Amino acid sequence: MHTRNLIYATLLGTLALGTTVARAADPLSSWNDGPAKKTIVEFVARVTKEGAPDFVPPVERIATFDNDGCLWAEQPMYFQLAFALDRVKALAPQHPEWKDKEPFASLLKGDVKGALADGEKAVFQIVMATHAGMTTEEFEKIVKDWVASAKHPKSGKLYTEMVYQPMLELLAYLRANGFKTYIVSGGGVEFMRPWVERVYGIPPEQVVGSMGKLQYEMRDGKPVLVKLPEIDFIDDKEGKPVGIQKFIGRRPVMAFGNSDGDLQMLQWTAAGTGPRFCLYVHHTDADREWAYDRASHIGKLDKGLDEAQRRGWTVVDMKNDWKTVFPPEKK
Amino acid sequence: MHTRNLIYATLLGTLALGTTVARAADPLSSWNDGPAKKTIVEFVARVTKEGAPDFVPPVERIATFDNDGCLWAEQPMYFQLAFALDRVKALAPQHPEWKDKEPFASLLKGDVKGALADGEKAVFQIVMATHAGMTTEEFEKIVKDWVASAKHPKSGKLYTEMVYQPMLELLAYLRANGFKTYIVSGGGVEFMRPWVERVYGIPPEQVVGSMGKLQYEMRDGKPVLVKLPEIDFIDDKEGKPVGIQKFIGRRPVMAFGNSDGDLQMLQWTAAGTGPRFCLYVHHTDADREWAYDRASHIGKLDKGLDEAQRRGWTVVDMKNDWKTVFPPEKK
Repeated sequence: MHTRNLIYATLLGTLALGTTVARAADPLSSWNDGPAKKTIVEFVARVTKEGAPDFVPPVERIATFDNDGCLWAEQPMYFQLAFALDRVKALAPQHPEWKDKEPFASLLKGDVKGALADGEKAVFQIVMATHAGMTTEEFEKIVKDWVASAKHPKSGKLYTEMVYQPMLELLAYLRANGFKTYIVSGGGVEFMRPWVERVYGIPPEQVVGSMGKLQYEMRDGKPVLVKLPEIDFIDDKEGKPVGIQKFIGRRPVMAFGNSDGDLQMLQWTAAGTGPRFCLYVHHTDADREWAYDRASHIGKLDKGLDEAQRRGWTVVDMKNDWKTVFPPEKK
Repeated sequence: MHTRNLIYATLLGTLALGTTVARAADPLSSWNDGPAKKTIVEFVARVTKEGAPDFVPPVERIATFDNDGCLWAEQPMYFQLAFALDRVKALAPQHPEWKDKEPFASLLKGDVKGALADGEKAVFQIVMATHAGMTTEEFEKIVKDWVASAKHPKSGKLYTEMVYQPMLELLAYLRANGFKTYIVSGGGVEFMRPWVERVYGIPPEQVVGSMGKLQYEMRDGKPVLVKLPEIDFIDDKEGKPVGIQKFIGRRPVMAFGNSDGDLQMLQWTAAGTGPRFCLYVHHTDADREWAYDRASHIGKLDKGLDEAQRRGWTVVDMKNDWKTVFPPEKK
């Protein structure tokens, strides 16, 4: 018996050592030890401690993240818009009429600003012309090819390399603590699903986004889903809590955004009973990324910043809270 | 070293014994050892065996289940319609105008058949009058109260006791084999989510269903989602593969239905590359449940039965394949 106990003790000792080592490696190592990191870690400890008054059962641990400007960059234009512009160029030979039709004519002459002068209407036309008229499987392949090759105009990196290293760590940290991590983005759901599992570790079924209508058809005896040029759902502003209810059906415990488009998601999250956590990523780093907020056309953060300050939500100051912004270059 | 090895061997022996015991308890004990059970078990073994040609990685293991007539009964009328009729009675005092307005007038006189004579239009009016005009949280409470008290007219059981024991075992068996189990039902998503986790072990975020439009509003400084009397999405027939793409974004590996309303879901599943499994529950047991198929108004199974036979899909003969239908009564 003595020997057996000794061996048990040795085994347990090894296990305990393993735990200590695992603890010593900081899962949020790209975060500086400032107030943002502290509030995150304290909140997670509080809701995952069994028996504690604020304990949240694992099944209820839903964390929702905006994508553009929260998990990956969004300057100088939303990456999905860059995709759409590239698609216009690729499709132009099949559309000779675009030479005389705005916004396509300006775009094909290289005048992006002119093409987008009409604002939302121009964007709508460009998105419909490039995101519809094919099957979901065809579109998935187009997105995968683009994501694997297109480069960001400023950094020269793949767009999927313009993701925020501290947020990748945060996603993994929350999952390790029993959270289901969701994207809730104004971006197109079919544009995100092909790559988010590889890049963020978020499976396609945990992506809520804007979408066009789909039509089920038989083609040569094989069923396909055709993407129609009609909007089905816009997952932005008031659409975000609606999207959360439609697609998840459970109120998040934690919500993460970076713009006024996320404000309603954060309000909806904060209004739940029990412990809730809301966080805004504030783009304050013109050197390593971009600095913008109240006056920006893209990712405007104005009302949200006021409400965050008033209500004590966590605001990440990218410049001071993040040790690194983007993941290290792959050799 | 000798002693340590001996103890390791003892520990391993205990573990191995545990495995044997677990295997001996049949996870599908309410299924007779017929062809339906055999095809299920063989398919699951085939796709979960690592290194085998048909291995499906756990992240891709999606299984979708219809609800009405597949996981719980649907006779003599869809249970959600029974809920709606009960709600009309409960709400009648607030709607004096219903006394002279069809389909409500007939309903309130107890003439269900007369009320539903108009078919879909009558059902639409009844559903809109009972499923809209309140917040999502208010509706959730109404559903929970009804589910906890309303009794089935024939069996006298709670509706949530009219679930199929063999299907409960199948859900648990698939989850134990790494599958994510989803409901993909023509029923209302907000009607199912309040109780499916408790009854089926399926979390609300894994329920795809029909839904009305939602509106985000501030009421006394608190955000609410209001259920509007407008249809947003009908998750039936062609709507099922559309719903799977919208809400899951991954094609199921296994799909389970019982009516022609599930045919497109099964076709869409079967059309995927790699191993796929389609199953129809055929209601053949007039003694223990109900017997109906090609001529039934509810849960009609006609084209689907032909296609299942032609394509070799599994068809469950409830009378012969199931040892028991409903769970044993709770004492």
